[in-house]
Amino acid sequence: MPDSGTNSGPDLLLTLQPGNGIALRVQLETALRDGVRTGRLAAGQRLPASRVLAADLGVSRRLVVDAYTQLAAEGYLHTRTGSGTTVSLVEPSAAPPADPPAERRPPRWDLRPGTPDLAHFPRRAWRRAWLAALTAAANDDFGYPDTAGHPHLRTVLAAYLTRVRGVAATPETVLVCGGVTQGLDLLCHGMRRAGASTVALEDPGLPHRAPIIVRAGLRPRPIPVDADGLIVDALPERGIDAVLITPAHQFPTGAVLAPQRREALVAWAARTGAVIVEDDYDGEFRFDRRAIGSLQGRAPGSVVYLGSTSKTLGPGLRLGWLVGPAPLIEQLVVHKFLTDHGSATLEQLALAELIGNGGYDRHIRQSRARYKNTRAALETAIARHRLPLLLPGIPAGLQTMATLPDTCDADLFRDRAEAVGVAFDSVTRYQHTPHRTHSVVLGYGNIGTNGIDQAAGQLAELFATEFAG
Amino acid sequence: MPDSGTNSGPDLLLTLQPGNGIALRVQLETALRDGVRTGRLAAGQRLPASRVLAADLGVSRRLVVDAYTQLAAEGYLHTRTGSGTTVSLVEPSAAPPADPPAERRPPRWDLRPGTPDLAHFPRRAWRRAWLAALTAAANDDFGYPDTAGHPHLRTVLAAYLTRVRGVAATPETVLVCGGVTQGLDLLCHGMRRAGASTVALEDPGLPHRAPIIVRAGLRPRPIPVDADGLIVDALPERGIDAVLITPAHQFPTGAVLAPQRREALVAWAARTGAVIVEDDYDGEFRFDRRAIGSLQGRAPGSVVYLGSTSKTLGPGLRLGWLVGPAPLIEQLVVHKFLTDHGSATLEQLALAELIGNGGYDRHIRQSRARYKNTRAALETAIARHRLPLLLPGIPAGLQTMATLPDTCDADLFRDRAEAVGVAFDSVTRYQHTPHRTHSVVLGYGNIGTNGIDQAAGQLAELFATEFAG
Repeated sequence: MPDSGTNSGPDLLLTLQPGNGIALRVQLETALRDGVRTGRLAAGQRLPASRVLAADLGVSRRLVVDAYTQLAAEGYLHTRTGSGTTVSLVEPSAAPPADPPAERRPPRWDLRPGTPDLAHFPRRAWRRAWLAALTAAANDDFGYPDTAGHPHLRTVLAAYLTRVRGVAATPETVLVCGGVTQGLDLLCHGMRRAGASTVALEDPGLPHRAPIIVRAGLRPRPIPVDADGLIVDALPERGIDAVLITPAHQFPTGAVLAPQRREALVAWAARTGAVIVEDDYDGEFRFDRRAIGSLQGRAPGSVVYLGSTSKTLGPGLRLGWLVGPAPLIEQLVVHKFLTDHGSATLEQLALAELIGNGGYDRHIRQSRARYKNTRAALETAIARHRLPLLLPGIPAGLQTMATLPDTCDADLFRDRAEAVGVAFDSVTRYQHTPHRTHSVVLGYGNIGTNGIDQAAGQLAELFATEFAG
Repeated sequence: MPDSGTNSGPDLLLTLQPGNGIALRVQLETALRDGVRTGRLAAGQRLPASRVLAADLGVSRRLVVDAYTQLAAEGYLHTRTGSGTTVSLVEPSAAPPADPPAERRPPRWDLRPGTPDLAHFPRRAWRRAWLAALTAAANDDFGYPDTAGHPHLRTVLAAYLTRVRGVAATPETVLVCGGVTQGLDLLCHGMRRAGASTVALEDPGLPHRAPIIVRAGLRPRPIPVDADGLIVDALPERGIDAVLITPAHQFPTGAVLAPQRREALVAWAARTGAVIVEDDYDGEFRFDRRAIGSLQGRAPGSVVYLGSTSKTLGPGLRLGWLVGPAPLIEQLVVHKFLTDHGSATLEQLALAELIGNGGYDRHIRQSRARYKNTRAALETAIARHRLPLLLPGIPAGLQTMATLPDTCDADLFRDRAEAVGVAFDSVTRYQHTPHRTHSVVLGYGNIGTNGIDQAAGQLAELFATEFAG
């Protein structure tokens, strides 16, 4: 509203708005800076004497002198005795960014994997834990964090992982990090620094792993999986420094690494000196029986264990952990120090509190029951709508692979389904080199049983009209 | 307390403690795992039949069968029809870590720089902001974060930095990151990927910068500073891809980059195409006048701006930001995605709330008054105790350089002072190649005015007894 303000006249086109909540000094300085930056005030242009501008704007001369002095110190203006104040040569601001890309409408039924049930994030329990952590925090807890993680959380996590996932852990073998992503990134950088060059990984497998490996200067080497998990026999006897694996519940096939393969893998690692990197990404969620304990507990000298709260609580917390031999942890702490100096302290203490007061176990129990239910609803809906889908994996986790009839291409089916409001992934997304497949991945973590049935109905209709016979 | 438990007999030496709060099944599995891991249960050893062990332990046979099955699936045991259950070959756990190193006693008077006043962390305001953020959070805010930072915080930060630090920022030019450390790490990786090789930096300068640069595959190139800040004329005309600088308040000398050097630096960057990386590490705290606005606002196309809450609130929060041209931000977002997938969401929303409700400005105002006071107390104490110390820098920030008499070696003085309970740094700690100096760095961020006076008294005594004449 320029009319309600005061104007410095045609030469400067500055407008101040007294009483708009921003100090006049700040308004004047901002206006001058903007004028210089946008080029409206041209390099070399002489500014009015402070007395003149003050009168123009109806402000004190002192305020104008202050602003001129400030902008001279910042390099926007030149002040020379005798010749007044002139505009400095300032490169213009970068052009304003183009219009943001049109947002894609979220799908009506979202079966894309990777996200837990966000509507059931335990807001109340997390609030209570966080408040307890804040109240109990020492002043030093607001200082630079222990880079390996707060000792209290490391102690609590070591006990928790030992008890629930059969991990061989002590506080000295735990590194707190920003999700599995950071754990893997640090590990890859550490291995690269130690001379490693190649990391084997499951094909198909979790997304974004190969680029993390490549960014650290390592080469990814895909190894196929079958119904018994990673085909351990396909691992070369030399030239592999580490293998990244999801033994408890392979992503995306849903296979469990068979006992004989676990043994063969550990023997392979012992023989070749390679590191096994166990990504226990949803190890808490098995519905048919107790979860298989971690591979790391079986061979703590050869296995580095990665886990997080991304599936148990929510990925927005960015809380994860890496468990490995103490000398490795010491090495990775150096990398973490140079990466982000350590993880935020209060959230670490909140997680320690939540685990310690039993709230974490309780939430996982409730979530497991809910996911079991949704998974059962998916099977019911497939039967009820006579969808020609087979679910080859174990009943576990937050997603399942689903195999279509041979005649039905997964990518095509996914594209057509998306057009009718049902989103999910084709397995091609998780293949090292995408190739034709009949398998899709259905995530049921963040969709209710009603949504499941409706989505299945839509897919049945799609089959009948476009993929029949 | 083995006496109160049940024992499986000499062959297994398993002890269960009913009613100790841990399920018997978990106790049994843990005991078996530990036995196998430690080698107490040797490879090949046959375990008692489930019926026998159940009777020994006074538990149900079903429980023992379950435990055997579980550990067989995990690879600790072999179960073969007809030949019973035997122990698998498992590599022993890593040896327990050596005793932790004896903790160094914290100094009685801590004048080491780098830490703000942790006793005045605004617990109440932060709690209120965090609770408001949690209440207002959408369910999706618990999902994977926007890697560049939550759009709400980026909007609030852009406005704040424009208003308070004269930064040229829009939401599209802001990247939220885990402190300045992560911002610099991402930037170095991004520059390296784009072909950069050498980063100039201030000598003496902030600690830990050179290792971050080296870890990213770049070469650090020290450039000397004097009483007017970085000696811009010492920057080579070719072969430098970026220069890292603290223009508002050089660390550790306390110099402000002189106006003519600001211009010369911007001109140098325009000429050579190098990037200026502005670390505004304590730009909010100047006591004698308003702070100099950011260099970035002067040349937004050439300058990348780094800042954080580490000095304004506390480094334990790990909240920082990087401002740069939108195409650079897009490139760094890819690196951040592969590093940690994004920063934790709730804390971002809490900071946005704290800035938005005025609490952030208020805390900074109060802190500035407090630090100004402590800084004045330091000058008073130096005069009162007739300490032969000169403070060459401007009255700003949370530390000052202090110059000793020519006869007094800074390292020696620091060592002797530490022995009498006063800790601070010698400037040698911040030199690229440490060499003899008469300057030390006194941090007054996290010590009260009383502590200041007592420490000065101690130092005066030290001077009189050990460094006189």
